[in-house]
Amino acid sequence: MSQKIISTDDLAFQLYEVLNIERFTEYPRYVDHSRDTFDAAIELALKVGAETFAPHNALCDANEPTFENGKVVIRPEVRAALDVLRDTGLMAASQDYERGGMQLPSVVAQTCIGIIKGANVSTHAYAGLTIAACNLIMAHGSEEYKQRFAEPMMAGRFFGTMCLTEPQAGSSLADIKTRALPAGDGSYRITGNKIYISAGDHELSENIVHLVLAKLPDAPPGVKGISLFIVPKYLVNEDGSLGERNDVILAGLIHKMGYRGTTSTMLNFGEKGGAVGYLVGEPHQGLAQMFYMMNEARIGVGMGAVMLGYTGYLHALEYARERTQGRPLKERDPTSPMIPIIEHADVRRMLLAQKAFVEGGLALCLYTATLIDEKKRSEDPQVREEATGLNDLLTPIVKSWPSQFCLEANSLAIQVHGGYGYTREYPVEQFYRDNRLNPIHEGTHGIQGQDLLGRKVAMADGKYYQALLGRIRATLQESAAQAELQDAVSLLGDALGKLEAATEALQALRKSDPDRALANAYLYMECFGHVVVGWLWLKQAQVALRGLQQGGERSAAFYQGKLHTCNYFLRYELPKPLALIEVLRQADRTTLDMPPECF
Amino acid sequence: MSQKIISTDDLAFQLYEVLNIERFTEYPRYVDHSRDTFDAAIELALKVGAETFAPHNALCDANEPTFENGKVVIRPEVRAALDVLRDTGLMAASQDYERGGMQLPSVVAQTCIGIIKGANVSTHAYAGLTIAACNLIMAHGSEEYKQRFAEPMMAGRFFGTMCLTEPQAGSSLADIKTRALPAGDGSYRITGNKIYISAGDHELSENIVHLVLAKLPDAPPGVKGISLFIVPKYLVNEDGSLGERNDVILAGLIHKMGYRGTTSTMLNFGEKGGAVGYLVGEPHQGLAQMFYMMNEARIGVGMGAVMLGYTGYLHALEYARERTQGRPLKERDPTSPMIPIIEHADVRRMLLAQKAFVEGGLALCLYTATLIDEKKRSEDPQVREEATGLNDLLTPIVKSWPSQFCLEANSLAIQVHGGYGYTREYPVEQFYRDNRLNPIHEGTHGIQGQDLLGRKVAMADGKYYQALLGRIRATLQESAAQAELQDAVSLLGDALGKLEAATEALQALRKSDPDRALANAYLYMECFGHVVVGWLWLKQAQVALRGLQQGGERSAAFYQGKLHTCNYFLRYELPKPLALIEVLRQADRTTLDMPPECF
Repeated sequence: MSQKIISTDDLAFQLYEVLNIERFTEYPRYVDHSRDTFDAAIELALKVGAETFAPHNALCDANEPTFENGKVVIRPEVRAALDVLRDTGLMAASQDYERGGMQLPSVVAQTCIGIIKGANVSTHAYAGLTIAACNLIMAHGSEEYKQRFAEPMMAGRFFGTMCLTEPQAGSSLADIKTRALPAGDGSYRITGNKIYISAGDHELSENIVHLVLAKLPDAPPGVKGISLFIVPKYLVNEDGSLGERNDVILAGLIHKMGYRGTTSTMLNFGEKGGAVGYLVGEPHQGLAQMFYMMNEARIGVGMGAVMLGYTGYLHALEYARERTQGRPLKERDPTSPMIPIIEHADVRRMLLAQKAFVEGGLALCLYTATLIDEKKRSEDPQVREEATGLNDLLTPIVKSWPSQFCLEANSLAIQVHGGYGYTREYPVEQFYRDNRLNPIHEGTHGIQGQDLLGRKVAMADGKYYQALLGRIRATLQESAAQAELQDAVSLLGDALGKLEAATEALQALRKSDPDRALANAYLYMECFGHVVVGWLWLKQAQVALRGLQQGGERSAAFYQGKLHTCNYFLRYELPKPLALIEVLRQADRTTLDMPPECF
Repeated sequence: MSQKIISTDDLAFQLYEVLNIERFTEYPRYVDHSRDTFDAAIELALKVGAETFAPHNALCDANEPTFENGKVVIRPEVRAALDVLRDTGLMAASQDYERGGMQLPSVVAQTCIGIIKGANVSTHAYAGLTIAACNLIMAHGSEEYKQRFAEPMMAGRFFGTMCLTEPQAGSSLADIKTRALPAGDGSYRITGNKIYISAGDHELSENIVHLVLAKLPDAPPGVKGISLFIVPKYLVNEDGSLGERNDVILAGLIHKMGYRGTTSTMLNFGEKGGAVGYLVGEPHQGLAQMFYMMNEARIGVGMGAVMLGYTGYLHALEYARERTQGRPLKERDPTSPMIPIIEHADVRRMLLAQKAFVEGGLALCLYTATLIDEKKRSEDPQVREEATGLNDLLTPIVKSWPSQFCLEANSLAIQVHGGYGYTREYPVEQFYRDNRLNPIHEGTHGIQGQDLLGRKVAMADGKYYQALLGRIRATLQESAAQAELQDAVSLLGDALGKLEAATEALQALRKSDPDRALANAYLYMECFGHVVVGWLWLKQAQVALRGLQQGGERSAAFYQGKLHTCNYFLRYELPKPLALIEVLRQADRTTLDMPPECF
C-alpha cells in the first residue's frame, strides 16, 4: 500500500474473493489469461502509476497548460508518461491481440485505468480520450477511416477528442448548432463552436482527431438529427502523411478549479469557410454512436471518482496513524504523551466514512465492469441479455454515486489533515478539486437521475430492475442464517422494501403526471445508489465472514475491517437518503411548486 | 440585489420583522441609533463591498501574495480597500464613540462585516485580525500597551495577528512549545515556531502586532500554563516611533486551496536569541483571554461561511434565470424554444437547498449576534444572564452549521452553473474554495461537537439547553393554531422530541462512559444544528404568514418564498441528520470499536 493509490489487499479481495473474476478465463476471448496475467497487468499499472504518473501530478496542477505563440504548452512530463503508458501496452489493455492489445477482461482493464487515474487523472485524460475516440472510429467508421485515423491513434501518433458541448446548449444536445455541408467529394465542411473540449489543442501528438457532433442540412430536428464527423487538426493525405492545417481554430483555453493538467478548450470550426470533416457511419446516427460508448465512459467517470477518493483516503489514513495530537478523554495529565489522531473516535468516523465510500464505490465500479464482460463475451445468450440490461440500469448509478460520495471522501480527507489538508503543500486538496468535475461531466447528477427513474427502471417493463432486486434478495437470503450479519440483513432489507414502495408509487404516477413523478428523481437516485452499494457491502461482509471463519487469503484484521465498515455504511450512511423515502413515495411537490419569482 | 452579495429584502426582513432589532435602540448604549442609522451603516457596507472589495476578489485569488527580496508582496488593491474600510468607519462599527467607533449593536456590526466578507473574504481578513487583536489588548492590556500598540491599530497604522497554532500541536493548545523568558526589564524573550499565521508578514502597514501564546518558565502544564504576549514586528519606542526589527522571522508562506488573498505564514520567534515580547494581563491567563474573544470570533466564522454561500446562491439564481437550456418534460417538439433552467425541478431543488441553507444560516448568525447585544448591553440582569448562557450554548453551532451547509450551498451553486461553474471564469468555484477553510479554522467540526455535547449542553445543569428548548416550544405553540403551519409544526416538533430523547440518553451515559457518549458528538451537533435552524425557519414562516395575511413591508412573492423554503427545509433537509437519531440515542459503538489496524 506504499504507493497510496489503492490497497492491493482490497483490490485482490474484491476481484478474486468477491467477484471471482477468474471465471472469465473460461470465456473463449480470455482463455490465455489467468490470475497471474491479471495480477501482472495490475502490478504494471501500479508501477507506472506510482513511478511515472503520480510524480508530476501536483506539478501539472500548479503549472497548467498555457497558450504561447499560437501553441498550447504542456509540461514535458505529460508526453513522457503517455509514452510509457503506450509502450507498456496499458493504453490498449482490453483491445484485441491483433490490434496490439492485451485482450484483458474489461474489469481488469478498468482496474488498470483506474489506478493510472488515481495516480494522475489529468495526464491520463489525454490517453483516455484518445482510446475513446479510437474505439468509436473502430466501431462505426469505414475501413479507410480506420486506417487513416484510428491506426495512428492506436500507435500513439495521433490523439483524439470528443466535441459534443456547445456554449448555448450544454447538456441539451438537441440544440447543437454546428452544421455540416456536403463538399461534393464525399467529405463535409463543418462550421460551429464547441466548448469544454478536453485536450482540444496541444503539441503532444503529431495530429489531433476531433470527433464532432454536427447536423446535416436535411437533419430532422432534435437529437435524431445529429451526425458524427471526424475532423482532424491537420488533414491526412492518402499515404498517411500530414497535409494542411484544417480550419479548426483554438478560440481560447478554459481555466478550471481542478483537473488543471488537462487543457480544456473552446474550438471554432470553419471560421475560414469550413473545416474538412468525414462522416462516421450513417447520417443522423451520431447520438446512438456516442451512446454506444457511453456506458463504458460512465463507468470510467465513476472509476475515476472512486480512485481520487481512494488515494485521498490512503493519504488521510497514513496521516492519521502518524500524526499525534491530543489525549484520550479520560486522560487528565497534560504532560502524558499525545496519541495518534486515529485514536480519536471522530477521526475514526471520518476514516470509516471514507473507507465505506471508496471501497463501496470500487465494488460498484468493478461489479458493473464484470457486467460489461458478461454482456460482450459470455457464450450464454441469457447471461449476455441480463448483463446488458443490468449494465444499462446501473449506468446512471455507477456514474453518479462515486462522483458524489467519493468526492465527499475527499472532503473528509482534507478534514482529517486539519489545516494541512487545506494547503497545496499536501495532495488531498488537489484530489478534491480534481474530483469536483465528476458530478458535472458525462451527464450531471440531474441528468442521471432522470435517466434512472424516467427510463432505466421502467425499461423492458421493469425486467432488469426486478432482476437487480432479485440479486439483492438472494444475497439477503444467503446471509439470513448468519448471526453475525443479522443487523446488516435487517437494515438493508428494510431499505430495500422502502425503495420498492417508492419505485412502485413513482412508476404508477409517471404515466399520469411525469413532471411530478420525476421532480425528485435525483433523490430517488441517491436512495437507489445507497441500496445498491449497501448490497455490495453485504456481499463483501459475507465473504469476509467466510474468510474469518474458514481462513481466507487475507489477515483477520482485514476481514474484520470489512465487516466493521459494512456495519458502518448500513448504520450511519444508508439511513440518510432513505430518510426522504416519504418525500419520494408521496411525490412531494415542494420543488415543483416553488414559483421562480419567489426565490 | 444587483450587487449579488446579499438580498437586502431578506436582510431587512430578518433584522426588523423577525428579530425586531429596533428594540435595541432602547438600550442606553444605542440610544442615538434608529432604523435609519442601522440602514445607513448597512448601505455603506454594501457600497464599499460592491465597489471596493468585490472587484479585486478574483484578482487576488489568481495573484496570491508572493515572497520577493525578503518581503511579502500583496496586490495594491488590498491596501486601498482596507484604507476605505477604515476611513468609512466600518472597521470600528461596534466600537465606542470615544474610540472613533459607530457604537452600533453587534448584530448590525456583524451584518456589515458579513457583507464585506461576502464581497471579499480574503482582503477583509487583514482588518478582521487587526480588530480582534486590538480588542484583546484593549480588554486585557495595560494602559501603556493600549497606547503603544492598540491605538495605532485603531488608526490603521499597525495591523495585528493571532499566533496560536504550532506545527506539532494543531488544535491541542496544551502542547504548545513556544517559551517566554523574563528579560529582567519587564519584557520577555520569546522563542518558538508558529504556523498558519494569517497576515503574519506583509508591507500593508507600518508595523505588525503579533499576539502570541507562549509558556513562562514556571507555567503549570497544559492549557493552564499559557500566557499571552504582544510581539511587534518592529519594536516601538516610548514616543511611538518605530525602533529596531524584532527577532521574528518569516519562515515561509503557506499556499492554500482558497482564501488565497490572505497570506498564511510560518513564523519563527527568537532565532537570533529571543523576540522581545510584552505580557498581556496576568501570567497563565492566555487561554482565558483568547476565549474572551472566541464567541464573537466564532460568530464571525459562521457569518463568513453564510455570506460566501449567500453570494454563491445569488450568482446561481441569476444564472438559472438567464440561462436557457432544455424543454419541459411534456414538450415533444425539439424546435420549441428552450426554457430558463430555473424551470427544471432539479435546478429548483438546488436553488431551494441553497436558499434554505444561506437564509437559515443568516438567521442563525443574526439571532446569535442579538444574544451578544443582550448579554453585553441589556439593563436587565436576567436577560443578560440567559443571553450569555444561550450564546455559549449556540457558539459551536453558529461556528459549524454554516461552515458545513453553506459550503454545501457553494457546491450546489457550482452544480447549477454546470461546466461553467467548474471554471475560474465564473466566481462560484472560488467561493467554494474560500469557504472550505471554515470547517477547519477556529476549531474543527470535531472540536465543536465535543464542545456542544461534552460541555455546553450540560453547562449549569442543562439550564441553557432547557432555556433553548423552551424558546423552541414557545414558537411551536404560537404556530399550533395556524393551519398553514401545521406540517411545519409537526415536523419540527417530532425532530425536537427525538433530539431531547437522544440528549437525555447521552447525558446519562456521559458520567459512566464519556468515550462512548461523545463518540458521535459530531452527528449530535448536526442534529442539534438542524433543529435550531428548523426553528429559525419556523419563526421566519410565522412572520411571513403574518405579512401575507395582514400585509407586510415586502411583496407577497417574498413571503411565499419564505413559507415555501421553510417547508423545503423541514421536509427535505431536517430528516437527513435526524435519520441517525437512533445511532445517537443508543450511543452506537461502531466508530469507537473499529480497531486502527483494521483500516
